[in-house]
Amino acid sequence: MTVDTIVYSADGRTPWEDPAAARDADGTTWVRVVDPPADALDEVADAYDIHPLEIEDALGNVRPKVEEFDDHTFVLVKDATLRRGDVTFAEELRVLQTAFFLGDDWLVTVEPQRVEAIETVWERVNREEPRLASRGADFTAYRCIDHVVDDYFSILDDIEDDIEAVEDEVVDAAGGDVLERINDLRRDLLSVRRLLWPTREAVGVLARGDPVQISEDTEKYYRDVYDHLVQLVELVETYRDLTSGARDIYLNALSMSTNDVMKKLTVVATVILPLTFVAGVYGMNFGGSPVNMPELGWQYGYPAVMVGMGAMAGILLVYFRQENWL
Amino acid sequence: MTVDTIVYSADGRTPWEDPAAARDADGTTWVRVVDPPADALDEVADAYDIHPLEIEDALGNVRPKVEEFDDHTFVLVKDATLRRGDVTFAEELRVLQTAFFLGDDWLVTVEPQRVEAIETVWERVNREEPRLASRGADFTAYRCIDHVVDDYFSILDDIEDDIEAVEDEVVDAAGGDVLERINDLRRDLLSVRRLLWPTREAVGVLARGDPVQISEDTEKYYRDVYDHLVQLVELVETYRDLTSGARDIYLNALSMSTNDVMKKLTVVATVILPLTFVAGVYGMNFGGSPVNMPELGWQYGYPAVMVGMGAMAGILLVYFRQENWL
Amino acid sequence: MTVDTIVYSADGRTPWEDPAAARDADGTTWVRVVDPPADALDEVADAYDIHPLEIEDALGNVRPKVEEFDDHTFVLVKDATLRRGDVTFAEELRVLQTAFFLGDDWLVTVEPQRVEAIETVWERVNREEPRLASRGADFTAYRCIDHVVDDYFSILDDIEDDIEAVEDEVVDAAGGDVLERINDLRRDLLSVRRLLWPTREAVGVLARGDPVQISEDTEKYYRDVYDHLVQLVELVETYRDLTSGARDIYLNALSMSTNDVMKKLTVVATVILPLTFVAGVYGMNFGGSPVNMPELGWQYGYPAVMVGMGAMAGILLVYFRQENWL
Amino acid sequence: MTVDTIVYSADGRTPWEDPAAARDADGTTWVRVVDPPADALDEVADAYDIHPLEIEDALGNVRPKVEEFDDHTFVLVKDATLRRGDVTFAEELRVLQTAFFLGDDWLVTVEPQRVEAIETVWERVNREEPRLASRGADFTAYRCIDHVVDDYFSILDDIEDDIEAVEDEVVDAAGGDVLERINDLRRDLLSVRRLLWPTREAVGVLARGDPVQISEDTEKYYRDVYDHLVQLVELVETYRDLTSGARDIYLNALSMSTNDVMKKLTVVATVILPLTFVAGVYGMNFGGSPVNMPELGWQYGYPAVMVGMGAMAGILLVYFRQENWL
Amino acid sequence: MTVDTIVYSADGRTPWEDPAAARDADGTTWVRVVDPPADALDEVADAYDIHPLEIEDALGNVRPKVEEFDDHTFVLVKDATLRRGDVTFAEELRVLQTAFFLGDDWLVTVEPQRVEAIETVWERVNREEPRLASRGADFTAYRCIDHVVDDYFSILDDIEDDIEAVEDEVVDAAGGDVLERINDLRRDLLSVRRLLWPTREAVGVLARGDPVQISEDTEKYYRDVYDHLVQLVELVETYRDLTSGARDIYLNALSMSTNDVMKKLTVVATVILPLTFVAGVYGMNFGGSPVNMPELGWQYGYPAVMVGMGAMAGILLVYFRQENWL
Ligand SMILES: [Mg+2]
Ligand SMILES: [Mg+2]
Ligand SMILES: [Mg+2]
Ligand SMILES: [Mg+2]
Ligand SMILES: [Mg+2]
Ligand SMILES: [Mg+2]
Ligand SMILES: [Mg+2]
Ligand SMILES: [Mg+2]
Ligand SMILES: [Mg+2]
Ligand SMILES: [Mg+2]
Ligand SMILES: [Mg+2]
Ligand SMILES: [Mg+2]
Ligand SMILES: [Mg+2]
Ligand SMILES: [Mg+2]
Ligand SMILES: [Mg+2]
Ligand SMILES: [Mg+2]
Ligand SMILES: [Mg+2]
Ligand SMILES: [Mg+2]
Ligand SMILES: [Mg+2]
Ligand SMILES: [Mg+2]
Ligand SMILES: [Mg+2]
Ligand SMILES: [Mg+2]
Ligand SMILES: [Mg+2]
Ligand SMILES: [Mg+2]
Ligand SMILES: [Mg+2]
Ligand SMILES: [Mg+2]
Ligand SMILES: [Mg+2]
Ligand SMILES: [Mg+2]
Ligand SMILES: [Mg+2]
Ligand SMILES: [Mg+2]
Ligand SMILES: [Mg+2]
Repeated sequence: MTVDTIVYSADGRTPWEDPAAARDADGTTWVRVVDPPADALDEVADAYDIHPLEIEDALGNVRPKVEEFDDHTFVLVKDATLRRGDVTFAEELRVLQTAFFLGDDWLVTVEPQRVEAIETVWERVNREEPRLASRGADFTAYRCIDHVVDDYFSILDDIEDDIEAVEDEVVDAAGGDVLERINDLRRDLLSVRRLLWPTREAVGVLARGDPVQISEDTEKYYRDVYDHLVQLVELVETYRDLTSGARDIYLNALSMSTNDVMKKLTVVATVILPLTFVAGVYGMNFGGSPVNMPELGWQYGYPAVMVGMGAMAGILLVYFRQENWL
Repeated sequence: MTVDTIVYSADGRTPWEDPAAARDADGTTWVRVVDPPADALDEVADAYDIHPLEIEDALGNVRPKVEEFDDHTFVLVKDATLRRGDVTFAEELRVLQTAFFLGDDWLVTVEPQRVEAIETVWERVNREEPRLASRGADFTAYRCIDHVVDDYFSILDDIEDDIEAVEDEVVDAAGGDVLERINDLRRDLLSVRRLLWPTREAVGVLARGDPVQISEDTEKYYRDVYDHLVQLVELVETYRDLTSGARDIYLNALSMSTNDVMKKLTVVATVILPLTFVAGVYGMNFGGSPVNMPELGWQYGYPAVMVGMGAMAGILLVYFRQENWL
Repeated sequence: MTVDTIVYSADGRTPWEDPAAARDADGTTWVRVVDPPADALDEVADAYDIHPLEIEDALGNVRPKVEEFDDHTFVLVKDATLRRGDVTFAEELRVLQTAFFLGDDWLVTVEPQRVEAIETVWERVNREEPRLASRGADFTAYRCIDHVVDDYFSILDDIEDDIEAVEDEVVDAAGGDVLERINDLRRDLLSVRRLLWPTREAVGVLARGDPVQISEDTEKYYRDVYDHLVQLVELVETYRDLTSGARDIYLNALSMSTNDVMKKLTVVATVILPLTFVAGVYGMNFGGSPVNMPELGWQYGYPAVMVGMGAMAGILLVYFRQENWL
Repeated sequence: MTVDTIVYSADGRTPWEDPAAARDADGTTWVRVVDPPADALDEVADAYDIHPLEIEDALGNVRPKVEEFDDHTFVLVKDATLRRGDVTFAEELRVLQTAFFLGDDWLVTVEPQRVEAIETVWERVNREEPRLASRGADFTAYRCIDHVVDDYFSILDDIEDDIEAVEDEVVDAAGGDVLERINDLRRDLLSVRRLLWPTREAVGVLARGDPVQISEDTEKYYRDVYDHLVQLVELVETYRDLTSGARDIYLNALSMSTNDVMKKLTVVATVILPLTFVAGVYGMNFGGSPVNMPELGWQYGYPAVMVGMGAMAGILLVYFRQENWL
Repeated sequence: MTVDTIVYSADGRTPWEDPAAARDADGTTWVRVVDPPADALDEVADAYDIHPLEIEDALGNVRPKVEEFDDHTFVLVKDATLRRGDVTFAEELRVLQTAFFLGDDWLVTVEPQRVEAIETVWERVNREEPRLASRGADFTAYRCIDHVVDDYFSILDDIEDDIEAVEDEVVDAAGGDVLERINDLRRDLLSVRRLLWPTREAVGVLARGDPVQISEDTEKYYRDVYDHLVQLVELVETYRDLTSGARDIYLNALSMSTNDVMKKLTVVATVILPLTFVAGVYGMNFGGSPVNMPELGWQYGYPAVMVGMGAMAGILLVYFRQENWL
């Protein structure tokens, strides 16, 4: 576990040893807790009046949400990244969460596992980027959430590439695993949607400026993130529709393939079976009477039969060619 | 039928003989009724001003719900457990209900059949667990409901295992009962959903703190249960989608199998029928003229025909192999 | 047409000759009109200030509904019973309606055809059942509506039996009429749903106690009926899902049957066609050279070929058995 | 173009030459405009303060709607009739629209093409039907709209007949155009739904009595029309479900037919191919050794083989009959 | 980048050099910015108090929307045109956006790429069309948005043509790419819907007159555009239903084709195989006994067999013809 505390303002930034004491320092206080053991947050929770149920949610596995408490707002969001090459689906979509406790001039963040998006903002605050330093805790929380939401765009870009790859393959219905891959894509989209819906709902609360900690100015920024989330949710729905379309085309290609196979079989049977029958006729052993198979003894009997059979086959093949069966 | 009464506070706990008299005792009163005969609740109902319609619902088979009455709130929840190895679906999902009558400082619970989750909380209260003893009747009711909701997570864990097992089987479409098993899973999910939806609605009423009996402090805990129920409802929807995906893959595997069978048949017919025709030709009995089947008398006639037929078969097999039909 | 009027109170009951005069009698007045000719309601309508449009609805064929008028509330519900053995669907689900005109201390009911459920309550009122007699017109209306709603439970029990019967049959996909029966069930459920939805809506209005004629005490009873209707609507949705599941299994059984038939055909063709080819070869008439079919003259030529063909067939059959095609 | 103006009251009716002047006449004024050229409405529009955008909608092709203006309410409804025997769908469903401009004591109606339903009401007003004459412009508008809505019932009755006709045909899946006819029905229902939904919405506004021009008394009548529209929308949904069911049964009949064809083919192949093989065996030319086809010379060889083959065929046919393949 | 500024009123129009200075000029100011580089809007933004986030949205790729700011309203709409003959879908539907910043008496429009619909309105304003010149900035914005929405009608007309073309082809299920074309149409409709929904929402805000910049008079015009958008959304849903119907018919045609192929194969096999068997029988070499194939020596043996086989084939063909298999 690491607990880092910084107090910053337009004038500069000061790292702080004791997170509890930093609450009342001049400027904006950010206490960042990464990878805490189960019971290690008691001190910080006490100093910032955080309820045990909030701590439980921050460390547990719950849906993204916003809850307003007496003197702070609790925000929980989930960062997601898609890792390729893994086998199990659960490992592929890596979901990490961050809890924000947003007070008037302080922010406590808790990451059960280090989140890249938060790391980025932390480093910017520590490098005293002017835009961040001169604004309050609500703006810093916005920057973090913005980075988290941007990660979803990368995931959907990846999924879009996959959909395009799958679409190129469905037409010939060759590999039987195309449907499984489509199903996996739908599954990914399902998971992403389950993350996006409550996130959109939660950011909507912030964008409407319900919590008192969100200043009117920062509200506009939350509205921007909210727009992104609406767009992401739409993308997910669109991609699900595209995968449905790909699946339909695939299944149709399979039906057409079966139809083609049946046509080939029918052509072969229709051409060969009558010829075999004719050959069978002239293999019969009738005799002893002038009307019993006199053809067998005709001078050009055999060539005539062969030519006849060739003509029969030829006519049938031409017919099937015209019917587009060949 | 058993009727147990206990009065507890931070100072200690006292079992009480007469449930009616216990209502006005100092501390929190919990009257627990298990397995009552149809008309045996009149005394308790009278003492606690419980309406006959509430008693009917408590003993009957109705949906989970919350109803506010003049001086108490009626809450009905259903505990569910999944029992494996049974044949009929109705027996597999075992649903037991508990009715809560929640007053200012008293709680009456009615279990038509003993519910394990309530048993657990009852035992904790009787062992004077400090956290429970120092809080009011609303918190005890919360603990019971929390245990009931946790049971749903076990059910969904079981169903998830089943889905994974089914997913491993659908690809080869071997056993015809895979679809029935998928259908059974969907049926289970349907039943669980029918239980979860009204439960979520009812707990939502408690989480918003509508009834006056819910203190502002306990409200947070009900909000936590509500979160779990939202998550459960989402899980059910996700699992239904997964079963749909599994069904699609299964049906596709069946179509591909039919396609493969047709291809095999077509290969066999296409290779063998022409050969049989050729053999038929040389089984014909033409003769008596130099152009009538002179091949039959050629020195290497038979080997030539055999080689020719072998070549024909070989070429066709190579072609089918290239077309991926073999 | 029959018009019966009764005035009842906790003190007793009095049949009344003139429905118009009974309106102002002491106690609760119930005017019950059964099977009236098109224009015969004018007198009653005048006496109780019922609008011509209400009479039109009461005798016509409209959706269940509640409408509040100045001094009374108009309630229209539909009783449904399922009659087996009939051919047309429209006759099978027998739908009868009852209109309630509910005033402060009077109730006018109009049944275009006699409704069993209303009959039952009428007889109870006339036998002076204490619970009914001591309560107002709103409670009597509740009792009628409660009986009507209970009839829906019988219908759904019947439909559940049908679903179970159909489910037992779908697996072998033998009879082609299973799908038609499933479709009929879906149609029944559709009709029942169309009746239940507006009924639920209408009873919801009564359960919220919107009309002034509904006393706070009776409201609880309407809430109970409302609960039943919610449960019925859920049951209908569940049963529709079950029929979908049954249909899927049936269609799958058909696909599997086609697959099995194809496999059988392929086995027969694959085993017999090569043998026939071999027999054809040895039926050829080559000769006049030591390399032309010397096998024909070998001492054990025939037994060898027969054994070879037997071996070939045996190997193929073992292979198909291993592939589970037999 | 025709512009007819009438002023009517309980006392009688007067045709009026100048529509503009009629506005302030005593009694209710109805200006009926039929088939106006594009720019011919300016005079009427000016006299009754109708906005150019309203005129545009009245003559254009927009959705049914209600819009309130300062001193009048604009209502647009669409009358639909189904004409059989036409080829294109667009011609089959003939949709005509009427615009109502409803003032305090005046009504302007605009029909781009003459609408039968309006014609009927116009004639009744001109024959001084007492019920219409003694009521205001809002009641006359109601009568027109009521007639328009009744036309939808005829359409749905026609569609119901079509559905029943289609249902009788789907089972044998004979004609390939059944599905096209079902699709056409669905298309009709789609079009009707698109007309009904906004109409229901618009009449709902009138039924709630939002516009000041609707008197409390006439409101009840609009509520009645609204009920009809709700019923029509439900009918459309029901009919769509019925067509889905018919389509399922049709497609299933096709699958069953394919299954039957395959079974027939399999029976033929299974019975004949082994017999052909046996005949092929005894057509082989082995000889020159006592073990080479001695059967050929046995006294009852031929009858024995024929009986054997007959027995084989018989056994197979009995087996297939038992399996219900024949 | 081009920045054009014009100030117009009923008196005339004046082009203006400096967009910033034009804000306070008498009359309505329109600043039109086309194709600006990323950072070139700072000056205009400063002069008109436009927030950086608005500029980001104006140049970025976000959903259509309306946002109200302190002294102006931000409106973003997307113009779409369908270009045929391109390969990739993304290129086919060309989507351009325009941002409107609508103040009391000024309008700033930003087009990242020149939009034809805006061009048209710009030219009309510059030609001093009286209707436009005498109205405020809100009416000019309306004219632009109206033109943009009209473009969607062209797209849907094109799509309707495509649907009709596809519908003519689906019946014979000849080309395998029909389903792909249907899928492409569904994709187009999906994209258009994704544009239309937020546009409808945004214009709904304007039509309700929420922003103070929209005068009550112009509100009616926005209501008209809103109507169009509602109609467009309905059209999209209708067209999606039509494509579903076309897809069903296509897939059914494919199933019927497979069924027909199977029937043809079965007819061929059923007619020829028995004949071949008979020929095989008379090709057997039994002999040396009067009961061993005496038919072979009968005087009319061969003609009798040939006639028998012809009769057999004829009977079967007549049977299949009656069964409608031929
Ligand atoms: Mg979750
Ligand atoms: Mg994107
Ligand atoms: Mg991309
Ligand atoms: Mg994946
Ligand atoms: Mg997988
Ligand atoms: Mg996209
Ligand atoms: Mg229930
Ligand atoms: Mg779990
Ligand atoms: Mg899983
Ligand atoms: Mg199960
Ligand atoms: Mg089962
Ligand atoms: Mg159930
Ligand atoms: Mg999960
Ligand atoms: Mg109805
Ligand atoms: Mg029928
Ligand atoms: Mg029940
Ligand atoms: Mg059941
Ligand atoms: Mg039935
Ligand atoms: Mg049930
Ligand atoms: Mg329209
Ligand atoms: Mg009807
Ligand atoms: Mg039609
Ligand atoms: Mg058509
Ligand atoms: Mg009907
Ligand atoms: Mg977008
Ligand atoms: Mg059009
Ligand atoms: Mg069309
Ligand atoms: Mg396209
Ligand atoms: Mg494509
Ligand atoms: Mg797209
Ligand atoms: Mg249209």
